[in-house]
Amino acid sequence: MTFTKPLSKFIVIMAALPLFMNAQDHYPAGQREKWLDIAKENTPKLIESIKRPVSPVKLAADAKAFQGYKAEPNGNVADVYQKSFKQQSGTVLDFGEHLTGYFTFTVKTLNSVQDAPLRFKLTFGEIPSEVAVPFDPYTGGLSRAWLQDETVTVIELPATITIPRRLSFRYVKIELLGSSPYFDFTISDAVLKATTSAKNTPAPLATATTDLINKIDAVGLTTLKECMQTVFEDGPKRDRRLWIGDVYLQAQANTYSFKQHDLTKRCLYLLAALSQEDGYLYSNIFEAPQPHAQERSPFLFDYALLYNVLLKDYLAATNDKQTAADLWPVAKRQMDNITTYLDANGVFDADKAVKNSWWLFVDWNDKLDRQAALQGVMIFSMKQTLELAKQLGKEKEVAQLPALITKMTAGALNKLYDKKQGVFISGTSKQVSYASQSWLILAGVVKQKEAQKILKTLQANATAVRPGGPYLYHYYVQALINSGLTADAKKVITDYWGGMVNKGADTFWEVYDPTNDELSPYNFFPINSYCHAWSCTPVYFIRKYPEIFQTK
Amino acid sequence: MTFTKPLSKFIVIMAALPLFMNAQDHYPAGQREKWLDIAKENTPKLIESIKRPVSPVKLAADAKAFQGYKAEPNGNVADVYQKSFKQQSGTVLDFGEHLTGYFTFTVKTLNSVQDAPLRFKLTFGEIPSEVAVPFDPYTGGLSRAWLQDETVTVIELPATITIPRRLSFRYVKIELLGSSPYFDFTISDAVLKATTSAKNTPAPLATATTDLINKIDAVGLTTLKECMQTVFEDGPKRDRRLWIGDVYLQAQANTYSFKQHDLTKRCLYLLAALSQEDGYLYSNIFEAPQPHAQERSPFLFDYALLYNVLLKDYLAATNDKQTAADLWPVAKRQMDNITTYLDANGVFDADKAVKNSWWLFVDWNDKLDRQAALQGVMIFSMKQTLELAKQLGKEKEVAQLPALITKMTAGALNKLYDKKQGVFISGTSKQVSYASQSWLILAGVVKQKEAQKILKTLQANATAVRPGGPYLYHYYVQALINSGLTADAKKVITDYWGGMVNKGADTFWEVYDPTNDELSPYNFFPINSYCHAWSCTPVYFIRKYPEIFQTK
Repeated sequence: MTFTKPLSKFIVIMAALPLFMNAQDHYPAGQREKWLDIAKENTPKLIESIKRPVSPVKLAADAKAFQGYKAEPNGNVADVYQKSFKQQSGTVLDFGEHLTGYFTFTVKTLNSVQDAPLRFKLTFGEIPSEVAVPFDPYTGGLSRAWLQDETVTVIELPATITIPRRLSFRYVKIELLGSSPYFDFTISDAVLKATTSAKNTPAPLATATTDLINKIDAVGLTTLKECMQTVFEDGPKRDRRLWIGDVYLQAQANTYSFKQHDLTKRCLYLLAALSQEDGYLYSNIFEAPQPHAQERSPFLFDYALLYNVLLKDYLAATNDKQTAADLWPVAKRQMDNITTYLDANGVFDADKAVKNSWWLFVDWNDKLDRQAALQGVMIFSMKQTLELAKQLGKEKEVAQLPALITKMTAGALNKLYDKKQGVFISGTSKQVSYASQSWLILAGVVKQKEAQKILKTLQANATAVRPGGPYLYHYYVQALINSGLTADAKKVITDYWGGMVNKGADTFWEVYDPTNDELSPYNFFPINSYCHAWSCTPVYFIRKYPEIFQTK
Repeated sequence: MTFTKPLSKFIVIMAALPLFMNAQDHYPAGQREKWLDIAKENTPKLIESIKRPVSPVKLAADAKAFQGYKAEPNGNVADVYQKSFKQQSGTVLDFGEHLTGYFTFTVKTLNSVQDAPLRFKLTFGEIPSEVAVPFDPYTGGLSRAWLQDETVTVIELPATITIPRRLSFRYVKIELLGSSPYFDFTISDAVLKATTSAKNTPAPLATATTDLINKIDAVGLTTLKECMQTVFEDGPKRDRRLWIGDVYLQAQANTYSFKQHDLTKRCLYLLAALSQEDGYLYSNIFEAPQPHAQERSPFLFDYALLYNVLLKDYLAATNDKQTAADLWPVAKRQMDNITTYLDANGVFDADKAVKNSWWLFVDWNDKLDRQAALQGVMIFSMKQTLELAKQLGKEKEVAQLPALITKMTAGALNKLYDKKQGVFISGTSKQVSYASQSWLILAGVVKQKEAQKILKTLQANATAVRPGGPYLYHYYVQALINSGLTADAKKVITDYWGGMVNKGADTFWEVYDPTNDELSPYNFFPINSYCHAWSCTPVYFIRKYPEIFQTK
């Protein structure tokens, strides 16, 4: 995820503020440094492995293939390495799997004597279309520099060249942009030094599991593995940073697969240490050149609230009370924002929050009214926080929560529930959406039976605003499971995530709309991340609820 | 210079031959290694200096400017460094002089937080048009990779980036190809670590010297200095190697300016050590990854012959008899080729030589018939070789030369001199050219008075084939001086080289035609070298013949 709203107003306002305001730090002096130290101590060692291409491929236009291109095996790698590269400009090598790391190749003189430098363009793609579609003229809303094409000048042969940037891809296209007519050369030894911090081997699924569920699980595990670097990254190709929304889902999947809880711990501490001066959390963190937040970025309310659930889940998975207690003040602080835009009826005033520069995410869908969904996230987070407080013996510190939960639950039922339609509605337009139903059901505002009815009504409502991508689909699946609609949950997993698998996904995509392969929140589909953290959660569902997913 | 003739025939034939044929080496076992060692011992230390841009410039289209573009100062460097670079994409920085070395710049966040990588294109130009004219679609005959444009992805700020390739330029254009709308940044600290092996300071010219001659001398010295690296390179931007024709002229200029004879010595030894198995010389040498010749390239006859003159000049400048005696076998060997294509009249059969894959260069001019010029180069080289032999007491080893000189002189006068026209003619078309007259006069085939007459007749001949570039202009000037036509010599220097100076040259160009700014032997003028060794020789003329050039 990358913020893409028109930000000029924020930037102007925020650029005028000093980076560190004189306001007193919400946390005690020295606290952030201690948290940073713990984050640092928990930095995982990256596991490096050497990977080589398995085959050259031909990219063929195919209307039935995802985004119009498929990759077909075309010869063998040894031939590519031995033959004149002049005759092979445009060669695409397939590494056979999605990988993240550092790419190296070798150029050697084949005959005569090099009398001029060579110029190559290398294009790395997570999916076939990414190495087939021209990037320029560039129409995307995010930096053109995310696209993984690099131009290389080779002055002297033989040469072994490493692309300095870390890359994330399965396919690499090598094009010759400049050479001399007076000598020939080969390209060989294409190698990726692949990196991940995923070191454990998740348990195999039950033998009774269907092929499709096995495949979905495998693609989810690869997605998670690729995003596991020195933090839980959102996408190894694009963004490459720690977002609360992503790590919340990654940690859930990790708990049921790799079980590398130290990485979750590191992320929890990084987010805490780098929170705003007022103690509220930044939505995302960069690790380099030193860990820092996206300072002055708009406050992302729903993500801040999910931090508390992440911490509670971490405690449940590890029983690490020391960490939970150490970071409790951060969770406690996030609760202070609940009442900021609450009206007298206990209903969240989303419009007012947005006017005051808060960012409400919930889903990539411009049409979505976020009021009811946020009401759900708030209640959900309060309940989880209260539970966490109980486990830590800190209930008194959040004594306001029980009454607030009651008030906001009543507010949701009185003001956001349309009895006639039998669904939750949101905003002045009284919008019906998957987001609103999912989040208010996850918040436990209605009992299971009622929740079932609401979800069935929702499914029958052709005009309801549907999820824009895997992130919200995750919460919808959880709402279905919580409501006992397990067959529906399985169907979403097999239809939606299974749809990506059937379209050839090696890793799950940041955005996916079965009806629109070229959907992009960034105006240009190759800039989408095709290995994205928040899409890995079938791993969690399949492994947490084997009775739903792991039977034929 | 780069060989540009259709070579496919050669390449096919030569690629089929093993790199080292089983033929016995012409030189004694171990000899080449010893010569290489001496070359290595004489590798100069490169002098590094830190250079910074003097001004941003605006490139303005101007029909009167060289190749249609002029660079006008436009603000100051400090402002460029402080301001948002997003507002400045396309900025051109002017280093104020031609430099060769390694370019570094720094990118820093200006406001907000970097949330995406940046992508830049840097274009380095020796002259203004080179950073103004689009390079693509590329039409040139040499590798596109010689053009100095590099694309750079910057993943993490702050970043200090060094372009890996060595560059040769005065102007650098920096264009922004990719950035995020959510943060801003600056580019600063553009620095070149400039390199040259020219360490001495040439004597100033006499105070009576005119401004133009002073300028021509200064531009010539810069040209020579820039080409002085770890060998005498032909051009620091393009080719970047040691060619016999270039080093012959560079050494002459060096003798009258920097006087760094060790560099000449190194070049003499490299050429000897890396000569063909049969002892004849390769026309050019590459230094990296280890010194090697352009093996299997066609034998360049006129260049091989000039090696002997280079060696003789070196002895004259240094009195280093040991080197001259050590390399004498190489000079002696070059004489064995004189008779290969000589007809019964003692006239060189150029057509036969070319048919048998010899390369006759003389000048960049496709229309030039090279027979008469080569006849001149051969006689010139024989006379100089004989002189060298005398100084080394080796006359007996080239006992064939006096008779050959006599025979070929007679051949030239009988078969290549048109009494009616009063000029030398060449080939079956009986072509009249500056090349033929210059070389046969330098060979001393006619006495000074006759030479004067020939040159005056030539000047009056509007259809005579004129020199295609500075390399042949050099020999024409020398022929004028040898013939006592010193005013004409001065006029060529002031008109031709002075013409480049008046068109804004900081260094002298590889090719220059006063009537065609866009002339290129390589089909695309930006690929021309604009700092080229063989064009530096006004330094030699002005300093060797002060009476001609250094008076007002």
